[in-house]
Amino acid sequence: MRLRNKPWAAEKIANSPNIVPPNPSEYRGEWAAYFNHNGPIHVEVGTGKGKFLTEMAQAYPDVCFIGIEKFDSVIVSAIERAEKANLPNLVFLNEDVQELRSFFAEGEIDQLYLNFSDPWPKVRHAKRRLTHEGFLSMYQEVLKPKGEVHFKTDNQGLFEYSLESFSKYGLKLQNISLDLHNSDISFNVMTEYEEKFSERGNRIYRCEASFPS
Amino acid sequence: MRLRNKPWAAEKIANSPNIVPPNPSEYRGEWAAYFNHNGPIHVEVGTGKGKFLTEMAQAYPDVCFIGIEKFDSVIVSAIERAEKANLPNLVFLNEDVQELRSFFAEGEIDQLYLNFSDPWPKVRHAKRRLTHEGFLSMYQEVLKPKGEVHFKTDNQGLFEYSLESFSKYGLKLQNISLDLHNSDISFNVMTEYEEKFSERGNRIYRCEASFPS
Ligand SMILES: C[S@@+](CC[C@H](N)C(=O)[O-])C[C@H]1O[C@@H](n2cnc3c(N)ncnc32)[C@H](O)[C@@H]1O
Ligand SMILES: C[S@@+](CC[C@H](N)C(=O)[O-])C[C@H]1O[C@@H](n2cnc3c(N)ncnc32)[C@H](O)[C@@H]1O
Repeated sequence: MRLRNKPWAAEKIANSPNIVPPNPSEYRGEWAAYFNHNGPIHVEVGTGKGKFLTEMAQAYPDVCFIGIEKFDSVIVSAIERAEKANLPNLVFLNEDVQELRSFFAEGEIDQLYLNFSDPWPKVRHAKRRLTHEGFLSMYQEVLKPKGEVHFKTDNQGLFEYSLESFSKYGLKLQNISLDLHNSDISFNVMTEYEEKFSERGNRIYRCEASFPS
Repeated sequence: MRLRNKPWAAEKIANSPNIVPPNPSEYRGEWAAYFNHNGPIHVEVGTGKGKFLTEMAQAYPDVCFIGIEKFDSVIVSAIERAEKANLPNLVFLNEDVQELRSFFAEGEIDQLYLNFSDPWPKVRHAKRRLTHEGFLSMYQEVLKPKGEVHFKTDNQGLFEYSLESFSKYGLKLQNISLDLHNSDISFNVMTEYEEKFSERGNRIYRCEASFPS
């Protein structure tokens, strides 16, 4: 069991087993059964307060969404949001993405979202970036062949790094936008950070990267 | 012989055989002999008025530079610039890049530059973009294995398209800059268009893409 250092958050999480399933590794390879649904499984890594995933789950009722957020004090906001929305196709895991493979079987996931991941600008911290090759190899294991990573950020350095990291690892890039909010995309669910940083006038960068078959 | 519709330009070109070698296809596979130098051969496609390549040739005396520009009225400015600089490692070809393979043998080129290529923004003109797969396959033929394309532009749409096109074709991306003039690169030779558009406040995008071995 993870150490929970905020008792109020721990209580909230423990009292929401339908939104934050306890012991999620029990469902490894069994998420379709858990959701009682054979639709695609989309996972957001570093989900924050859950705005993006809750709105995505509303927009795509045939997709099962799982958000991973390591901080209990943050995930409680996602729980509150999900409670109000009351969606059968959305859960959150209060876990560290490092443990991804203990929650998902090989090829269990169809698509993965990374939104406004921590930039870790110092070169010596590059390994902590969620688009570092160490994480990409983890994602590849749990994603289906040709599985996609959808990535958004306002951080120029992280976006440059990530395009190179995807490319170096052999992923193919598509639907790159270097200024998402001034482009003619038809549909975009904003994240909390996206709302905050685009209001400040920051450009939002986006791309999709697909693993080989 | 190409049709020259500006007599004054035609004359200037004809009178500058050391800078614009007539019948360049005669040197196909023989550029090292032509330059009497075994250094790497770098080619700029759509060279314009020659500022970039002349300054590169001054900065890198051990590299042989060849600029390709189809418009005779434009290339005369490159000739004038090269005359003043008087460099043994620089020539221009007044030709269309479509003919690239008639001027260069397989694997004869080490590196290729594309600077501020015409954006051809309409989707139906995508094939004319110098980063379209049709051109990439041409570049691959004349470049050495692992040969690199170095690309700069201020055009956001062309840059997005080109990153995707490089990626789709299997090139690896590196040294991506989404704002070249506000980055900490140490050395950058500006092109005519780069000078003009960066003065207007446009962002300059840059990347390198390398073919597989
Ligand atoms: C900068 S926030 C972005 C939140 C949200 N995706 C958005 O766009 O508004 C990054 C989030 O990722 C979470 N996070 C960072 N590293 C993580 C990890 N290794 N495992 C799980 N969550 C992580 C952080 O706790 C934080 O809530
Ligand atoms: C927009 S200008 C850029 C000039 C220069 N590279 C710069 O950055 O300042 C594009 C140049 O490419 C040349 N060009 C376009 N298509 C070409 C082709 N197929 N073959 C040779 N030159 C071409 C044009 O004539 C023009 O001079």
